[in-house]
Amino acid sequence: MPTVSIEMFPGRTRSQKADLVAKVTDAVVDALGVQPDVVKVKLYEIAPHHSAQGGVLASDRPGAAFGPPVTGE
Amino acid sequence: MPTVSIEMFPGRTRSQKADLVAKVTDAVVDALGVQPDVVKVKLYEIAPHHSAQGGVLASDRPGAAFGPPVTGE
Amino acid sequence: MPTVSIEMFPGRTRSQKADLVAKVTDAVVDALGVQPDVVKVKLYEIAPHHSAQGGVLASDRPGAAFGPPVTGE
Amino acid sequence: MPTVSIEMFPGRTRSQKADLVAKVTDAVVDALGVQPDVVKVKLYEIAPHHSAQGGVLASDRPGAAFGPPVTGE
Amino acid sequence: MPTVSIEMFPGRTRSQKADLVAKVTDAVVDALGVQPDVVKVKLYEIAPHHSAQGGVLASDRPGAAFGPPVTGE
Amino acid sequence: MPTVSIEMFPGRTRSQKADLVAKVTDAVVDALGVQPDVVKVKLYEIAPHHSAQGGVLASDRPGAAFGPPVTGE
Repeated sequence: MPTVSIEMFPGRTRSQKADLVAKVTDAVVDALGVQPDVVKVKLYEIAPHHSAQGGVLASDRPGAAFGPPVTGE
Repeated sequence: MPTVSIEMFPGRTRSQKADLVAKVTDAVVDALGVQPDVVKVKLYEIAPHHSAQGGVLASDRPGAAFGPPVTGE
Repeated sequence: MPTVSIEMFPGRTRSQKADLVAKVTDAVVDALGVQPDVVKVKLYEIAPHHSAQGGVLASDRPGAAFGPPVTGE
Repeated sequence: MPTVSIEMFPGRTRSQKADLVAKVTDAVVDALGVQPDVVKVKLYEIAPHHSAQGGVLASDRPGAAFGPPVTGE
Repeated sequence: MPTVSIEMFPGRTRSQKADLVAKVTDAVVDALGVQPDVVKVKLYEIAPHHSAQGGVLASDRPGAAFGPPVTGE
Repeated sequence: MPTVSIEMFPGRTRSQKADLVAKVTDAVVDALGVQPDVVKVKLYEIAPHHSAQGGVLASDRPGAAFGPPVTGE
């Protein structure tokens, strides 16, 4: 511990994922004062048609486009 | 919050999933008196060969057939 | 399966929780056509000082008050 | 309950998974004195490029090879 | 990895929990052929009034009594 | 989304938790290029007697002391 689990929409590149886990690990080390090596990070991709808010699937929202960050989430 | 995570076997159609998240959101709104928009629902599909009860994988149970609702779960 | 996990702020009464699991189970049965008895629901309470959006803990948001539904979430 | 969730790297065969859920169920029954049939086990495969320690993705570690048990994890 | 998460009703003693994590770790080592030290086990206690089946909270089931193993789960 | 869940041992102060969610949110925004407001962070405290490695509970490890960062994790 600490163990960090990150859920996000698909579409990020391998290097974005490497950058994400590095920056999140640094943030945890900085805030909690633990050693980097005890920090684990796991990534989980959730498809837009498996994620809903207000009773509507993300994939069914008008103008829904779930590319990587440019279109945001 | 509230955030609802639903694990189920694969096999449902997109419209069944849309119907599921809409009905579950309504149920949460009704029971907790919160606004629909704060209710998030996420769907996770678990393969029958990744789910076991009594030490036996669902896929190994005699007569195991994991289509959508007709065969139930 | 299906297994439903619901995360929410503390503060609901026992009867609200009973009402919530009953209504959510009905919604799942209705949408997926499964038997009620295969539907499991688990409730998890997350304190406002353990939940953040936009980098700010819910408990630190101005006017944050996390009683049951009246003040909403 | 009890419900057991096991996260692991991909690569195990169907029979290894069947063996795993059987042995873990026996261990839970033995330690907690519950009936086998109330014990549920779910398996989740996490790709090496979705799992990091010390800020580095498992897939980016030198010599990273994530076959089944022989190469271990 | 592998990481094992076990959800169960409260009521077990510290030594039962120690016995549980030891036996489950052995089972995973035996089935997957990994080193014991890479196996992590986490325990989560879920109150009977936070767990439901068939739309009814475990705590509301007639004769519901959730002591340790003797009464089972 | 993205939603970040962080499991850690108990013992951090409220301000450490506020610092943690702020820094982790910044890291996610920086790496994924999303808006801060879509980033949610949830904290989960796991007691040392509910967390094991190599079959041994953290609380049973010789010299186990689980104060905040100074003693690390």
